[in-house]
Amino acid sequence: MNLDDSSVSDKQSRDNLSWDDLSSDKPTWKDECAVFGIWNDPEASHMTYLGLFALQHRGQESSGIVTLDGSRHLEKKGIGLVGEVFSETDLKSLTGRAAVGHNRYSTTGNNQISNYQPLTANLLTGPLALAHNGNIVNDKELKQELKKQGSIFQGTSDTEVLLHLLAKDERTDLVDCLKSNLKKLKGAYSFVILSHDCLIAARDPFGFRPLILGKRKHEEGESWVIASESCAFDLIGAEFVREIEPGEILKIDKNGMKSEIFDTRPKHAQCIFEHVYFSRPDSNVFGLHVYSTRKEMGKALARENILDADLVIPVPDSGIPSALGFSEQSKIPFELGIIRNHYIGRTFIQPSQSIRSFGVKIKLNPQADILKDKRIIVIDDSLVRGTTSRKIISLLRQAGAKEVHFLVACPPTVSPCFYGVDTPEKDQLIAANHTLKEIRDFIGADSLAYLSHEGLLSSVAKAPRKGFCSACFTENYPEI
Amino acid sequence: MNLDDSSVSDKQSRDNLSWDDLSSDKPTWKDECAVFGIWNDPEASHMTYLGLFALQHRGQESSGIVTLDGSRHLEKKGIGLVGEVFSETDLKSLTGRAAVGHNRYSTTGNNQISNYQPLTANLLTGPLALAHNGNIVNDKELKQELKKQGSIFQGTSDTEVLLHLLAKDERTDLVDCLKSNLKKLKGAYSFVILSHDCLIAARDPFGFRPLILGKRKHEEGESWVIASESCAFDLIGAEFVREIEPGEILKIDKNGMKSEIFDTRPKHAQCIFEHVYFSRPDSNVFGLHVYSTRKEMGKALARENILDADLVIPVPDSGIPSALGFSEQSKIPFELGIIRNHYIGRTFIQPSQSIRSFGVKIKLNPQADILKDKRIIVIDDSLVRGTTSRKIISLLRQAGAKEVHFLVACPPTVSPCFYGVDTPEKDQLIAANHTLKEIRDFIGADSLAYLSHEGLLSSVAKAPRKGFCSACFTENYPEI
Amino acid sequence: MNLDDSSVSDKQSRDNLSWDDLSSDKPTWKDECAVFGIWNDPEASHMTYLGLFALQHRGQESSGIVTLDGSRHLEKKGIGLVGEVFSETDLKSLTGRAAVGHNRYSTTGNNQISNYQPLTANLLTGPLALAHNGNIVNDKELKQELKKQGSIFQGTSDTEVLLHLLAKDERTDLVDCLKSNLKKLKGAYSFVILSHDCLIAARDPFGFRPLILGKRKHEEGESWVIASESCAFDLIGAEFVREIEPGEILKIDKNGMKSEIFDTRPKHAQCIFEHVYFSRPDSNVFGLHVYSTRKEMGKALARENILDADLVIPVPDSGIPSALGFSEQSKIPFELGIIRNHYIGRTFIQPSQSIRSFGVKIKLNPQADILKDKRIIVIDDSLVRGTTSRKIISLLRQAGAKEVHFLVACPPTVSPCFYGVDTPEKDQLIAANHTLKEIRDFIGADSLAYLSHEGLLSSVAKAPRKGFCSACFTENYPEI
Amino acid sequence: MNLDDSSVSDKQSRDNLSWDDLSSDKPTWKDECAVFGIWNDPEASHMTYLGLFALQHRGQESSGIVTLDGSRHLEKKGIGLVGEVFSETDLKSLTGRAAVGHNRYSTTGNNQISNYQPLTANLLTGPLALAHNGNIVNDKELKQELKKQGSIFQGTSDTEVLLHLLAKDERTDLVDCLKSNLKKLKGAYSFVILSHDCLIAARDPFGFRPLILGKRKHEEGESWVIASESCAFDLIGAEFVREIEPGEILKIDKNGMKSEIFDTRPKHAQCIFEHVYFSRPDSNVFGLHVYSTRKEMGKALARENILDADLVIPVPDSGIPSALGFSEQSKIPFELGIIRNHYIGRTFIQPSQSIRSFGVKIKLNPQADILKDKRIIVIDDSLVRGTTSRKIISLLRQAGAKEVHFLVACPPTVSPCFYGVDTPEKDQLIAANHTLKEIRDFIGADSLAYLSHEGLLSSVAKAPRKGFCSACFTENYPEI
Repeated sequence: MNLDDSSVSDKQSRDNLSWDDLSSDKPTWKDECAVFGIWNDPEASHMTYLGLFALQHRGQESSGIVTLDGSRHLEKKGIGLVGEVFSETDLKSLTGRAAVGHNRYSTTGNNQISNYQPLTANLLTGPLALAHNGNIVNDKELKQELKKQGSIFQGTSDTEVLLHLLAKDERTDLVDCLKSNLKKLKGAYSFVILSHDCLIAARDPFGFRPLILGKRKHEEGESWVIASESCAFDLIGAEFVREIEPGEILKIDKNGMKSEIFDTRPKHAQCIFEHVYFSRPDSNVFGLHVYSTRKEMGKALARENILDADLVIPVPDSGIPSALGFSEQSKIPFELGIIRNHYIGRTFIQPSQSIRSFGVKIKLNPQADILKDKRIIVIDDSLVRGTTSRKIISLLRQAGAKEVHFLVACPPTVSPCFYGVDTPEKDQLIAANHTLKEIRDFIGADSLAYLSHEGLLSSVAKAPRKGFCSACFTENYPEI
Repeated sequence: MNLDDSSVSDKQSRDNLSWDDLSSDKPTWKDECAVFGIWNDPEASHMTYLGLFALQHRGQESSGIVTLDGSRHLEKKGIGLVGEVFSETDLKSLTGRAAVGHNRYSTTGNNQISNYQPLTANLLTGPLALAHNGNIVNDKELKQELKKQGSIFQGTSDTEVLLHLLAKDERTDLVDCLKSNLKKLKGAYSFVILSHDCLIAARDPFGFRPLILGKRKHEEGESWVIASESCAFDLIGAEFVREIEPGEILKIDKNGMKSEIFDTRPKHAQCIFEHVYFSRPDSNVFGLHVYSTRKEMGKALARENILDADLVIPVPDSGIPSALGFSEQSKIPFELGIIRNHYIGRTFIQPSQSIRSFGVKIKLNPQADILKDKRIIVIDDSLVRGTTSRKIISLLRQAGAKEVHFLVACPPTVSPCFYGVDTPEKDQLIAANHTLKEIRDFIGADSLAYLSHEGLLSSVAKAPRKGFCSACFTENYPEI
Repeated sequence: MNLDDSSVSDKQSRDNLSWDDLSSDKPTWKDECAVFGIWNDPEASHMTYLGLFALQHRGQESSGIVTLDGSRHLEKKGIGLVGEVFSETDLKSLTGRAAVGHNRYSTTGNNQISNYQPLTANLLTGPLALAHNGNIVNDKELKQELKKQGSIFQGTSDTEVLLHLLAKDERTDLVDCLKSNLKKLKGAYSFVILSHDCLIAARDPFGFRPLILGKRKHEEGESWVIASESCAFDLIGAEFVREIEPGEILKIDKNGMKSEIFDTRPKHAQCIFEHVYFSRPDSNVFGLHVYSTRKEMGKALARENILDADLVIPVPDSGIPSALGFSEQSKIPFELGIIRNHYIGRTFIQPSQSIRSFGVKIKLNPQADILKDKRIIVIDDSLVRGTTSRKIISLLRQAGAKEVHFLVACPPTVSPCFYGVDTPEKDQLIAANHTLKEIRDFIGADSLAYLSHEGLLSSVAKAPRKGFCSACFTENYPEI
Repeated sequence: MNLDDSSVSDKQSRDNLSWDDLSSDKPTWKDECAVFGIWNDPEASHMTYLGLFALQHRGQESSGIVTLDGSRHLEKKGIGLVGEVFSETDLKSLTGRAAVGHNRYSTTGNNQISNYQPLTANLLTGPLALAHNGNIVNDKELKQELKKQGSIFQGTSDTEVLLHLLAKDERTDLVDCLKSNLKKLKGAYSFVILSHDCLIAARDPFGFRPLILGKRKHEEGESWVIASESCAFDLIGAEFVREIEPGEILKIDKNGMKSEIFDTRPKHAQCIFEHVYFSRPDSNVFGLHVYSTRKEMGKALARENILDADLVIPVPDSGIPSALGFSEQSKIPFELGIIRNHYIGRTFIQPSQSIRSFGVKIKLNPQADILKDKRIIVIDDSLVRGTTSRKIISLLRQAGAKEVHFLVACPPTVSPCFYGVDTPEKDQLIAANHTLKEIRDFIGADSLAYLSHEGLLSSVAKAPRKGFCSACFTENYPEI
């Protein structure tokens, strides 16, 4: 691994749009998607638009909505943020009382549009639309097999496999088809499916990615809502009902709701990184309030690291909750010692001559008036490559900080994720290849500490369902 | 049929972009496509761009190019004219020495982009791209059968059927697959296909639509070129070699060229409407120079109709060649009595208060200085609904014409086409429902005459291959 | 002068949009503007839009409309063709019953938008909008003087001078102001001016550029219309009333129409190039039908040049009328031996390897079937640099022409214009620097002839007002 | 005044882009501009771009840059955010080592582009560009006078007056002209002016709006920089040198720097609202660190209001510093009880059926897990109309808050501003028309308190220059 202080890429400046910012150093931690579904709502397309808007942080490359009007599907997909993809005219023309929506993070290849979700197909039984959050790990084998039987794949995404499995299945009942075909899929998936007559939510038996059920009251009655995170419910005024269970298929149609568990596992594997970084702080995920678990991480960090310092400052915005927790526990005063500029847009033209640490400065401005001659504790949510942390520390020292202690509110990130998070390769993960001291020296801190694995688990200890996947910190992957 | 003088639609004003204009009255005569292919050319994407540009009149809704670089396909498709769809960057990024291109006229439905051609798929044997001009008449039956076997259709076009038939065929030799599967297709087709290692041209056994082979010399040798019309060869400096035969599969790869006739028919059915209206006048189609056959139609018309008049004027631009022929035969002086404005773009805002015959006037301006007190013979290439002719004649009378004799350089159009021309329904065809006298009265001419069927056939008598389909004039459809 | 066969520039391909095309060789013959005004029309903005549309050939770089609603002005100006600049929403928001419009050909400098017309200003007496066709030759002196008095010029156009002269004039009557200030202007001008309470048309005493008055009947009465050419009247259904006289100021307001001659000259100087090339063939300009004068030029050319040939062919579209005239006079058959492609748009991507004479070929396709082994007379309206003619002749020979005789329907162009036509510099005019034989050799013709000056004048002999400026052919500039 | 709970307007959702957000209730508090200038910098246009970027919060409607290359000006202006207006190509084509830039908040009228700054003119002495932050109150009288003398105003902005005064002044020395003409202007102004040979900064004698001088080291030496706020210096790595003095004209040219005080006043009137709301928290303004003065306001508020509560929460982002100060002083724990969504873009489509308090919810999400059954103190930076505060409090109660005490970190806003802040009319200011109790009832708080005027002044007591304008809180306008 090269410890070069590489300049900020385009992708980084785009990432800056996210609430849970990548200002720290996660330029390629880029996957994750958002799914949303709604049934029996007089404003189905508008509510899906709002739900996707609230879930924008889970995917910023493309967005799509498919509605069901009668037994017909209508759709609009496009590149960009939710607010860019859909016009008022689009939403009005997406008629019907049921919908499925998707935000996608990142696509590659030259045939991109075919990968945008929801994926759609006209099957013998009627139209089908599919939105997926997660990652199927045995997609290559399944695709090869399907191609041999004459299936034509339009895109390169793993999700399309399920569409073809369903198309080839002769059973006419969609839940029956799903029960049998989901078992062929290995990996992480939270699916929302819209057919010609029902809405279906399905979650893999490990429960890797979140998926929740809610209810919205409207003038004409009640609608059912499915979403990745509860912040989507908050915006549309829906009420949280329950999580979709790991291994559950939930079908909603004109006759009401029907649930089946198609696969049960003794051990679950809920992604702990949702709480560390991905989810919005104002969401409830796996039954826990994210902001509060992050404060707990900060408190645990304070319990594990007794430091003599003048101020605790977060790397904003994602480090704020843990820094507040740290301050509360340690009694060391909290300050917004770095001000974040939220105007960063998609494109940003850099000067040709180098301005020192320009890439970080464009969004993070340390405040000399606060920091001068102070001993500072900086809290960040995670540390992946180290290059951004290095720049931040350099700026803090320029601003006059006397000591800089860098504390990370999660354990060292040592392994890539195969279950829906497109992490950097192992050789890009600084903690996988370097000692604590080497990392401290690279980033230029006076001291460096990570939260322990036990500390991390303690912060999610109150989760109603046990079993978390923390393979990115432990290399201990769940057996699937 | 309603003889209302309906106002000019959006579609009509778009149609005005065509060389062979729809200024007469063919607002819904809207199908036809252009196909193009090239093999072993250092500028394959640029040459395809130019070829499609020359063939713009055959399809103005969308355009697409797929190139072959190594065994990989690269593609760009989009809505609009060739000059709008492709940027220089696009053409540069479409690397490779072989390409297939397509212009499409008209798409419907809410999932349009899936219908844009060339259609593409990643088969077990590699990538495949398909461009089609024509119409498969048994596509519904074939699709239903394929869906039962689990095929997922992305679009609504008839062309996609062949893609799925090939995907399901276990033979690895593409020509073998084609030989067997083309026989399942009924209808009109000129295909250009690009696989991972060859370019293939195929034409239905009736030879409905044109398809020709050419050769282009370049700095590094020679490339083979396939196109719908010879005007595409003229622009890129390629030389005409021969027609692709009806029922022929021609394969070009690194080993050279190989041809097979997969189906022979005693009787051909070359579309005579290509000569009447579709093709560019500067093309050679079915072995005949289009401009010259149109002059012949004008001469035949003059032989059949001896009229006493002062001037012969065309409805420009498509009526010009036959009017020149008429003038040459009859010795009645030719004048450009109507000046055409070529600035008409895609959108045109109409005044809210009616200006008389505004829709026609925006592109056709009769010249009072020429027409005043004259007895005029007006020549148009065809007459479908009669509404535009009616407006033109009204404008000519306003301009002072003493007599207006309307002559049509083809027979009465009485039946729709099922072989690649999306003609109006029978009840929209004025000649299918009205007597000559009724039509004359409706358009307001002093006299009206059509070219006889014999006269029409005499103008293409020198074609090297006999057998034309003139079902739109005769209801005498070929047996397929 | 360099006789290099330079490739076709961007500007040329843009020029191709014009009816009177620059396909011959007039790449920089680029000025001219269109002016339009209307008073008391319920659809003032729509009619102005249509008028500008009909006058598109006089200016394709920018377009603008200013309307008068009450005593308030509303405006929209933009870059591009009329059909691109104005949306339906624009036209609706341009309320009011009076309007002035302008098409502009070409602007330079980095502050372009300030040059787009109609120019507008808020004077003490109210808003004023100004549209100008022509060229003020003493603008530099006048500007310097005005700047000394503190006037701030927004743009670089000569037209802005009049605006400042009017702003500084203390008289409150606009006609009085104009009478006195127009006398300060030297050069060519046809002005249309819209104030807060009247519409004014004014023309320089020489009558260089055309300007006409018309009348449109509508549901609520009658409106007065001013335009550069009569084709604008044809489109909106207005009736030609008369020319604005050289040296006339015509004011139209709620009290009716009032005219004054502010300057009389014994000798007029109507631009003969309007008839040779600029104006639309279906216009009446200076009291003559343009198409007919062009036919006369062709006839005169035939009388002056007795040639033994098989065919007469025009360089389309602008050479068509003179070629028809030549054929009529000489009895040599007329053929469309070159087919023009009207699809040429603003941008066109050229192949990197040269295709011979590509720039011309993209819009002009010679027809071998017509030309092979024939002795051809080619008629073009004018010949400026010779480079395009050279390419056309080369293509004709490739197409098999046995002999090519090139005839130009006007005299040799030897001097630049200072009165509203932005001609090439003298050193770019081939006829100014080379003998007839040299030019013939350069363009590669078997023979070359121009129309004589007498022949040219004979073709406009029936003009109601005598006195033409033909300085571009004679260097004999009018004394101003 | 109507206390209706009106829905969120377009303007409000645009305002959301600002760091100092308008999420509280300042929908029409919309003026303010940013100015920037640089002299002798090898990357003048890029640095200006970055400076404007850092100052984006001061104006989001349009942006412009004018550079000086030799004695020539180059410019680019456009509608939108800095990141949207300028492309890399623009910045490259804006050559030269000196530049002036401007962000503008809000424009009205139908001739908007003429109002975008920097305003430019070509005077007799050469080109001049002018950027202005502030408001001239006697512009109407001055304009009328200038129009009488024949000046043509292009736009409707007050700034254009100075341009015409300078154009009419016969002195050739720009500083002399300014000295005499600035005295004619009444009101607030911080000007940055670029001529053909110098950069000038000038500030009104009251010092209403900030303006500072800095120095940037680069590879080729040093450049001088002028900006509205110090955050612009931070981003480009420039060092703060000093404030431009009230009544100072500072000229920078190739001979160095020269300063003159053209007007001295015994009493200054620095806008205190810059510290309350406008400026970025990480800026130094009038010699004070904004974040720190806001914390002081929070502390003063805590000293003035002893409340028994469980939590202090800010209305994010602008209320954060004062809430931190309040918490520090009162020892009541600070929590981010409302999470702000930073994805809000320009356009946002609202559902047709009302979602309760939707307009606020789209960006502010109260966290029930934090707030439930708690007694809450909410801190906002200011309270203008009360409608948004009302919605926020309603959402907090829905989230379970037991008590909501609303504290405003400035005094009641009772009068409009005439010096560069486009405040609502008096009848829109809730505190101007209602008692404290009425306001408390309208917003629905359990208690409501404002910071006292003394408390506010105490927070800026350390300012190096005394004299603040707090007329918006006191109606005590400075005498000008």
